[in-house]
Amino acid sequence: MSAIYSRDQLYSFTKNILLKIGHSNEHAQLAADVLLAADIRGIDSHGVARLSGYVRLWEKNRVNAKPNMKVIHETPSTATVDADAALGLISAPFAMNIAIEKAKQCGSGWVSVMNSNHFGIAGYHSMMALNHDMIGFAMTNASPLVAPTFSKERLLGTNPISVAIPALKEKPFVLDMATSSAANGKLEIAQREGKSIPLGWVQDKEGNDSTDANAVKNGGALLPLGSSHDAAGHKGYGLGALVDIMSAVLGGANYGPWVPPFVAFLDPLPDLPGKGLGHFVGAMRIDAFRPAADFKKHMDNWIQRFKSAPAIDIAERVLIPGEPEFSMTEYRLKNGIPLNGNVVKDLAALGERFNISL
Amino acid sequence: MSAIYSRDQLYSFTKNILLKIGHSNEHAQLAADVLLAADIRGIDSHGVARLSGYVRLWEKNRVNAKPNMKVIHETPSTATVDADAALGLISAPFAMNIAIEKAKQCGSGWVSVMNSNHFGIAGYHSMMALNHDMIGFAMTNASPLVAPTFSKERLLGTNPISVAIPALKEKPFVLDMATSSAANGKLEIAQREGKSIPLGWVQDKEGNDSTDANAVKNGGALLPLGSSHDAAGHKGYGLGALVDIMSAVLGGANYGPWVPPFVAFLDPLPDLPGKGLGHFVGAMRIDAFRPAADFKKHMDNWIQRFKSAPAIDIAERVLIPGEPEFSMTEYRLKNGIPLNGNVVKDLAALGERFNISL
Repeated sequence: MSAIYSRDQLYSFTKNILLKIGHSNEHAQLAADVLLAADIRGIDSHGVARLSGYVRLWEKNRVNAKPNMKVIHETPSTATVDADAALGLISAPFAMNIAIEKAKQCGSGWVSVMNSNHFGIAGYHSMMALNHDMIGFAMTNASPLVAPTFSKERLLGTNPISVAIPALKEKPFVLDMATSSAANGKLEIAQREGKSIPLGWVQDKEGNDSTDANAVKNGGALLPLGSSHDAAGHKGYGLGALVDIMSAVLGGANYGPWVPPFVAFLDPLPDLPGKGLGHFVGAMRIDAFRPAADFKKHMDNWIQRFKSAPAIDIAERVLIPGEPEFSMTEYRLKNGIPLNGNVVKDLAALGERFNISL
Repeated sequence: MSAIYSRDQLYSFTKNILLKIGHSNEHAQLAADVLLAADIRGIDSHGVARLSGYVRLWEKNRVNAKPNMKVIHETPSTATVDADAALGLISAPFAMNIAIEKAKQCGSGWVSVMNSNHFGIAGYHSMMALNHDMIGFAMTNASPLVAPTFSKERLLGTNPISVAIPALKEKPFVLDMATSSAANGKLEIAQREGKSIPLGWVQDKEGNDSTDANAVKNGGALLPLGSSHDAAGHKGYGLGALVDIMSAVLGGANYGPWVPPFVAFLDPLPDLPGKGLGHFVGAMRIDAFRPAADFKKHMDNWIQRFKSAPAIDIAERVLIPGEPEFSMTEYRLKNGIPLNGNVVKDLAALGERFNISL
């Protein structure tokens, strides 16, 4: 049965589970904060719903709860981090802090992370830059679910890109998007409700257009942003490929079909070309280009101008990237986070096993 | 009547026209090289077809043929350039050279350009990094033609992003894409042929889906990559918005609806928030992250693996971003560049006026 929990309840529960599997207090707090950021922002697929998945990866020795993360290569504005099989929830903020320090020193900082695991929502990491009057960047590759244009085979993850940009009085601009046409979470909702999905989200295992919410499960694939070739799916494929290369080829992680599966019951492929999966994060100081106050004043102007564009339908005005997630955050911090029945059951089982009550 | 010209013929013609309107030899050669790069790569809309448009902007004093381009703000890894109303064809390579020098010094270099004009194909500028074993980035904003999701109004240009990544034996990976669903050039082809266009490319002036190739001309708009909201058009809007902010708000150029029109018969709006239009370019040294030889070996592996994915249709295997343009370059350098009748007429008139034969 579905139920509603406060952010603090779920945060404590998550932190305690992560402590039980051996994380330090600092790492458990950080990882719980990242997971809960997904839930309060309304990106339910990337929050506590994934906790048991991370635990199963730890059981398979694919997640290291006591990672010795370190910089293995650097220049004044760049670094490569070996995450030592940490949760990406922990290694991405570690890398982002390095990027921010480098940006303070020389204008911008860019950090490649290899030997890592899934990092939750990209937006958490990019938004770390905001309080420093910096623009933040975060991307990651992920287990292959998306077929490149013309391919039957899945070779790319949903490979998200996030960029967070500060404003003055307005809320920041926070782009956080998968480079696939639809998120896997949307398919899961349609599956639960027994509904078909719009054309342009998936193809079946022969590569035909499909409206079947189970098509990916049955050997099909998600389509890249833009969908078919006519509708510019090759651009979404190009963006997903870019994220794969920046996140993994650059630092020495696995790429394309070799990215280790998130589900622990599938083993990684043999003869891997890299280690774990990879992220790429960055920070740029605004005042490395122009005074931050000028920039933020113009961001407010940009945002206000776009919000006031004449709407096609009076019920739906133009939204600024990140705006729906800020509204959801406000709502859920006040009213709690609804979890669906399967997630509640999953967390209850986890709690029982580790003797922690939800 | 359409006709075929060699690259060198069109290059000399273009260079001579640019000299006639007052450019230095160095600038005329550079701008001609950038324009011809579009034609030999098959991006006909951005090549010599635009030459007379640039000349008309010069007549309106919106292009300065003797620009004093300078760095107005900098840090070790960043700079802002005031292009002094230069052709973007000239200011973007100027900025890219600064980015490359900064990358040599401290790993990466990022340059914002304001007070500029259209810069031709983004791919020319990003590809300048390749010979230095660097990854190159280039983006620009442009005159508003694209409607944000839910908006009737056009507020964004086709705002392209290009990223060029070196490989070892394989051709480089060169992403060069507009953030709209379709390029304006595709609409022009359909207009000439009196054909309708696929759903998902444009909306009419009320914001309804349309298959009319003249919809944009008649007050409609191009749709962002991803098309409608269901098909993830909000992601294309987010990307186009990101390009607008990085290219213009960051450095002090005009953004959104204030970007000056490319066509000289339309005047810029009053009370502009910035100067000219803007670009953002960058370069990252590969060996700022890992040894370049390792990276390039893995890029070859990435490219070969993607090329060999099982195809949906045996006639169309997976393409690597940039691959069609490299093939076209080879073909056109050998067989010449076909220009359609209107472009030939346009260039002939230009030649007559400046007493230069094509």
